[in-house]
Amino acid sequence: MLELRQDLNASDQVRHSIEEVLAVGRTAWQHYLFFRSKVHGVCVALDGDLQSCEADEGLYHEALVHPAMLAHPAPKRVLIMGGGEGATLREVLRHPTVTEVVMVDLDEEFVGLCKRLIPDWAEGAWDDPRLELRHEDIVAYLDHTPGGFDVVVGDLIDASEASSPAAELYGPEFYRKLAAALAPGAVLATQAGPLTPAQVAGHRRVRGALGSVFGRVVSYGMNVPSFYSLWGFVLAGAADLIPGGYAEHRALFELRAHERGLELAHTGPEALAAAFALPARLQALLQGAA
Amino acid sequence: MLELRQDLNASDQVRHSIEEVLAVGRTAWQHYLFFRSKVHGVCVALDGDLQSCEADEGLYHEALVHPAMLAHPAPKRVLIMGGGEGATLREVLRHPTVTEVVMVDLDEEFVGLCKRLIPDWAEGAWDDPRLELRHEDIVAYLDHTPGGFDVVVGDLIDASEASSPAAELYGPEFYRKLAAALAPGAVLATQAGPLTPAQVAGHRRVRGALGSVFGRVVSYGMNVPSFYSLWGFVLAGAADLIPGGYAEHRALFELRAHERGLELAHTGPEALAAAFALPARLQALLQGAA
Amino acid sequence: MLELRQDLNASDQVRHSIEEVLAVGRTAWQHYLFFRSKVHGVCVALDGDLQSCEADEGLYHEALVHPAMLAHPAPKRVLIMGGGEGATLREVLRHPTVTEVVMVDLDEEFVGLCKRLIPDWAEGAWDDPRLELRHEDIVAYLDHTPGGFDVVVGDLIDASEASSPAAELYGPEFYRKLAAALAPGAVLATQAGPLTPAQVAGHRRVRGALGSVFGRVVSYGMNVPSFYSLWGFVLAGAADLIPGGYAEHRALFELRAHERGLELAHTGPEALAAAFALPARLQALLQGAA
Amino acid sequence: MLELRQDLNASDQVRHSIEEVLAVGRTAWQHYLFFRSKVHGVCVALDGDLQSCEADEGLYHEALVHPAMLAHPAPKRVLIMGGGEGATLREVLRHPTVTEVVMVDLDEEFVGLCKRLIPDWAEGAWDDPRLELRHEDIVAYLDHTPGGFDVVVGDLIDASEASSPAAELYGPEFYRKLAAALAPGAVLATQAGPLTPAQVAGHRRVRGALGSVFGRVVSYGMNVPSFYSLWGFVLAGAADLIPGGYAEHRALFELRAHERGLELAHTGPEALAAAFALPARLQALLQGAA
Repeated sequence: MLELRQDLNASDQVRHSIEEVLAVGRTAWQHYLFFRSKVHGVCVALDGDLQSCEADEGLYHEALVHPAMLAHPAPKRVLIMGGGEGATLREVLRHPTVTEVVMVDLDEEFVGLCKRLIPDWAEGAWDDPRLELRHEDIVAYLDHTPGGFDVVVGDLIDASEASSPAAELYGPEFYRKLAAALAPGAVLATQAGPLTPAQVAGHRRVRGALGSVFGRVVSYGMNVPSFYSLWGFVLAGAADLIPGGYAEHRALFELRAHERGLELAHTGPEALAAAFALPARLQALLQGAA
Repeated sequence: MLELRQDLNASDQVRHSIEEVLAVGRTAWQHYLFFRSKVHGVCVALDGDLQSCEADEGLYHEALVHPAMLAHPAPKRVLIMGGGEGATLREVLRHPTVTEVVMVDLDEEFVGLCKRLIPDWAEGAWDDPRLELRHEDIVAYLDHTPGGFDVVVGDLIDASEASSPAAELYGPEFYRKLAAALAPGAVLATQAGPLTPAQVAGHRRVRGALGSVFGRVVSYGMNVPSFYSLWGFVLAGAADLIPGGYAEHRALFELRAHERGLELAHTGPEALAAAFALPARLQALLQGAA
Repeated sequence: MLELRQDLNASDQVRHSIEEVLAVGRTAWQHYLFFRSKVHGVCVALDGDLQSCEADEGLYHEALVHPAMLAHPAPKRVLIMGGGEGATLREVLRHPTVTEVVMVDLDEEFVGLCKRLIPDWAEGAWDDPRLELRHEDIVAYLDHTPGGFDVVVGDLIDASEASSPAAELYGPEFYRKLAAALAPGAVLATQAGPLTPAQVAGHRRVRGALGSVFGRVVSYGMNVPSFYSLWGFVLAGAADLIPGGYAEHRALFELRAHERGLELAHTGPEALAAAFALPARLQALLQGAA
Repeated sequence: MLELRQDLNASDQVRHSIEEVLAVGRTAWQHYLFFRSKVHGVCVALDGDLQSCEADEGLYHEALVHPAMLAHPAPKRVLIMGGGEGATLREVLRHPTVTEVVMVDLDEEFVGLCKRLIPDWAEGAWDDPRLELRHEDIVAYLDHTPGGFDVVVGDLIDASEASSPAAELYGPEFYRKLAAALAPGAVLATQAGPLTPAQVAGHRRVRGALGSVFGRVVSYGMNVPSFYSLWGFVLAGAADLIPGGYAEHRALFELRAHERGLELAHTGPEALAAAFALPARLQALLQGAA
């Protein structure tokens, strides 16, 4: 039996049984593995790290995309960093306010594999006329972007480990550069690694980097079953980004989702709002020094 | 290296590295293992299933105990089923309204091991004069209990698998019997297995059994890091048990915790309230046929 | 990290770390996996069972082929059953007495993959004019074979488990059919599963089946590092097949290898002869009732 | 399920399922684990490395002890280094020529555990009047030993890794010191780590160290099922120690075993002699530079 082994932390490992390998190999940038799991359906791993599984990618991508999109009163221009599976794009395009999405994913071959192997995940988004799909380095793109983005969604590979090749894309210099490409009132969301006490350092680094650029930085978490942990996200924006707590979040999410005819089938406005109410001890750890 | 292997579902396994075995053996009722994990601290496993770990047992036990205790306006008599580690007892006794706790844990030897090996977990609760500790079968105890319990907390071993030896303690017959021992307006909380789509059947069974006896049955979940999943609990009581949603839960938890001088160091009133706002798709699965 | 997990017996498992997947998929007959291991080089697995690894396939194939070939005074016509990697063929063709080899391997696609992915293993054998390569069922082939084989080498997938799909190819009926295709004085060798006390039943079954057809049946074993066990083979033939013990085996192997200009680079005549001197307790288990 | 994980080499791991832990803890010198395996019976591990299992310790200990004892015409005084389980002692005492055995095992507590938990393994040897059991450092013991040993058996923990704490006990300095305690014509045998191409360095180091002191150094191997590899031993002595090859070894082993009324139930004279006929490629690796 083939298995994908992943270190969960310094003590524990999870092993995913692989029913069938759909594709495996190496692009110019990374190692990819598409496989079928009995429990999680088709799954995608990059450089040995699970990225998304059919069974709960809806939960993950709704949690990644919608808080930021709904926090903005009328997001028109959206930048997606990474997101090769096409599911982040799918969720962004559900907002009828959107007129233009620039998706920058370095790895053309990987995106091609996703288009071919998991076309359903994009639900036609690849053909949406609002999409400008670019295969170039995101840092390079920021040098010549016309900018003016209302929302930025970061769906890059995880960089919880400071040694990750993607670590600079979660650092203060990068975010400063990114800030220049934002429209006034812009909102950013990014995945930010697992939110567990043993691994909170990575998330805290991302928060810290965003805090040096944005007026308000908020963490939230969603339990993604196939990741076997509470997964962390960060929402960043101006100081008045979603004032208040759960009640205001929920009201805002519900109202705007309704206005935009947006169904949140996997999460719902309540669960999205609740995602911001992290346990007290975890919050204390997040506030701690990096 | 010694490892504790656990099946997470039909596909995946987690392996906990064991730094040191503190005690291992078999009582008259079950196999026990106390070990030290580099990440989770001292952990307790029964019959090969992880029960609690030092690093996050506070999170687990606060989530298990306080929603029920706070949902009741003035819990005096409390029944704990199982809970050998002493941590459930510790949390229950934090409520100054409590005048009497009957804790029924069949396995005297296991409770003795907990008293000796993890005495800190109980924070003196074993010596509290309000405690009546009984080592007998909970079904037998219900035959001769004086009853009149305001709150019941179920901290028995997991029975997500219908074939578990504890399965009957999560069934409708048992709950009917238990109902006779309750005071008017009583509230029950029980752990109810993992809340993940792949394993929701066990939780649904517990809900269904409680629903045949109690007017209102509500599921909630808390991500417990060492369990590698969103852990499920059920709160049951009269039809008017905590009306409304998050805002009401939170207000109630905050108010009563304040009144009782109760600090919720690991969770907090917000996270406890948010625990009831489960993702939409999971809710749909929970409502589905058993 | 990708791993190939294999059950070693009812208790233990081995996990092979996979550096790189070279090919994975399913032919009409079986699931195949070609991968690179840091320790064992390129490895081939069929239906999840490791077949051969670059680092020690020489050891395995010399042990499989040469005792039978050297036990025969002048093997001309040889039948290979299975052996898709081409390495069994390579070893057979090293004997200059050979004028014709019929290799029957059902799975044309798998043989094609071996020709393309591990061409070195065959050392040109695929192009040898003495080879007749047939892709058909071996049972069907025996119905129309001209027969007259001096040596038969069985390199079929393991059938230590009685439930294996290949089990009938190690059974008495099959061997009776095969006997009709043999020249007088023919010798047969087959791989016959692991030779460990916990798994000896499979080997004993093969021995028993061969014993119902051949006058003499002898077991031998070679430790193949990547298999993590002493691997078993059976040599069968007429009653006077290699008389005596080690000294005679060794003398015969040495003499005939010398005559045929055959170098046994991985094993040598001594180790091949010693392979027949199995530990006493294992011999007793092999003689036990099936 | 509890498992004992062991690295087999730089790629692969084996996991032993543990049916029951019999004892686990730490002496002043090492971590011990006695457990029951469904396949291997009671097993003993030290510092996480499997030492012996009930199901095949007979094979291991016969292979360790008897070649050396039988190579000596009349071994009277024997020194055992390590060997806490008592099984090496048991095999040594089977030779009626023996008048005195000094067994030096540093770890009194571990030996006490073996006496209590696996008393059968010693078959009464602990009470044999010929035994002098000492719990002291073997290096210290050599400073005050009366010496005059005919046979020395090294059953110390494996030091295949140069970084092992026991590494010095397999080094040239130690062996020079040991040489001073030998009677003329003395023979030494020691376990010497796995004999697989990927791990041959450790064995070669032991050989090299012995070669700097003894006139003749010979490697041999026995497949020990629970070790999942061909296990290596080294026999060392004067230049004329067992002249010739298999035939001479076997004749000598058979003759002397017969003279001494010694039954080799697990191995037998043939398999012991065959153990010296290592595969050609392995021999070449052993001869290679360290």
